[in-house]
Amino acid sequence: MPGIDKLPLEETLEDSPQTRSLLGVFEEDTAATSSYFSQLFKAMQRIYDAQNELSAATHLTSRLLKDYEKQRFPLGGDDEVMSSTLQQFAKVIDELSSCHAVLSTQLADAMMFPITQFQERDLREIVILKEVFQISSDDHDTAVNRYSRLSKRKENEKVKNEVMEDVYTSRKKQHETIMHYFASLNMLQYKKKIALLEPLLGYMQAQISFFKLGSENLTQQWEEFLTNIGTSVFNMSSYQLHYIKIIMSQ
Amino acid sequence: MPGIDKLPLEETLEDSPQTRSLLGVFEEDTAATSSYFSQLFKAMQRIYDAQNELSAATHLTSRLLKDYEKQRFPLGGDDEVMSSTLQQFAKVIDELSSCHAVLSTQLADAMMFPITQFQERDLREIVILKEVFQISSDDHDTAVNRYSRLSKRKENEKVKNEVMEDVYTSRKKQHETIMHYFASLNMLQYKKKIALLEPLLGYMQAQISFFKLGSENLTQQWEEFLTNIGTSVFNMSSYQLHYIKIIMSQ
Repeated sequence: MPGIDKLPLEETLEDSPQTRSLLGVFEEDTAATSSYFSQLFKAMQRIYDAQNELSAATHLTSRLLKDYEKQRFPLGGDDEVMSSTLQQFAKVIDELSSCHAVLSTQLADAMMFPITQFQERDLREIVILKEVFQISSDDHDTAVNRYSRLSKRKENEKVKNEVMEDVYTSRKKQHETIMHYFASLNMLQYKKKIALLEPLLGYMQAQISFFKLGSENLTQQWEEFLTNIGTSVFNMSSYQLHYIKIIMSQ
Repeated sequence: MPGIDKLPLEETLEDSPQTRSLLGVFEEDTAATSSYFSQLFKAMQRIYDAQNELSAATHLTSRLLKDYEKQRFPLGGDDEVMSSTLQQFAKVIDELSSCHAVLSTQLADAMMFPITQFQERDLREIVILKEVFQISSDDHDTAVNRYSRLSKRKENEKVKNEVMEDVYTSRKKQHETIMHYFASLNMLQYKKKIALLEPLLGYMQAQISFFKLGSENLTQQWEEFLTNIGTSVFNMSSYQLHYIKIIMSQ
């Protein structure tokens, strides 16, 4: 139904069938929004959890490499080239795990926070307002019923006034709650757009920062380091090949 | 024990206490190596699994955004700006998930493959060779026992020859297996260095490619896109603020 995007607050007092029907459409839309956001929330939570796990596993790997020299290997304990190479690896991998940790924090603040707020505050508010509206409608119905039974019997003026007062108060309360409910449903149409775009923007900004951090600060120094290590490994491989030949010639 | 790094193959025939003791040191070192690699393997497996999960979760998020326009929202179905914005987000996030998938593949080939090979082929080989060596030693002991019992009794020449032949064959077999076992233990001292450095190099190269891919191809086009979206969201937020003011003035 294109074009419909606002519940008329000015018609809340009338409570017409048209308004009720329009309310139904808004409630359906809210249900569809809830369901869609719930899926998106789960997907983003998976990204966030995986990013945290990646950060932790990278940190663990770095720590294991750092601990290499503390291992009590009965042989090759004097292999300082190997130890210092692994220390360097530990250092660069630790830097990488710091980048991952920064990314995790940014995802928490700029992606998970806004989408969680929308789920737990804005969508939850609608559910509560619907309940409050339902309760105040029931209260009003009760008061109106009491009033209609009143007119058939003879009652004293005091009771009559009390019931009248009750009808008035509950009507006023119902009107307030429906106003609040309608206003929140209207607001949700705007909030849901922000709630979709804000975490996505946060996600993208965090990724861009991560790539920048990685490529500007780390890549260059890593490449130099890797060229050196690469040469060592190549030499080691040559030595290994040489050794294999010796063994085979025995 | 610095300096020790080779089991003497030329002494395998003698089977001296010194050689046996040195073998013990190599076996201890192999056990320590196994234990260290097992921890490192688990940490790398965690990185790899987290990277795969990140790749999958990113892809899922992109797919959900792509599916936004297929959702049957009763309201705002005509919101083409929102739909096309989310399509663009879906596209860039899908590109990012492709980068993650490339990284996953590289980690599989250049990190998980070599460390798995070392675990399942090289370290496993040592275990098997030790068993084979044990069996051939037992066979030789049995043959020698039979021979020593022979000399006390009078046997016919044929049986004597058979037992002699058996001692010779089992001794030859034992010597072959100990040679093989020693050679593999010696080789392991070199292989373990390669097995440490190769997956780390693979890991680093994969990360560098990932950062390059991300910063060269994606970051720039993303930033332009985000500037546009940022403006839209800012406008939307202004509109939202404006709307809140209208509601509050009612």
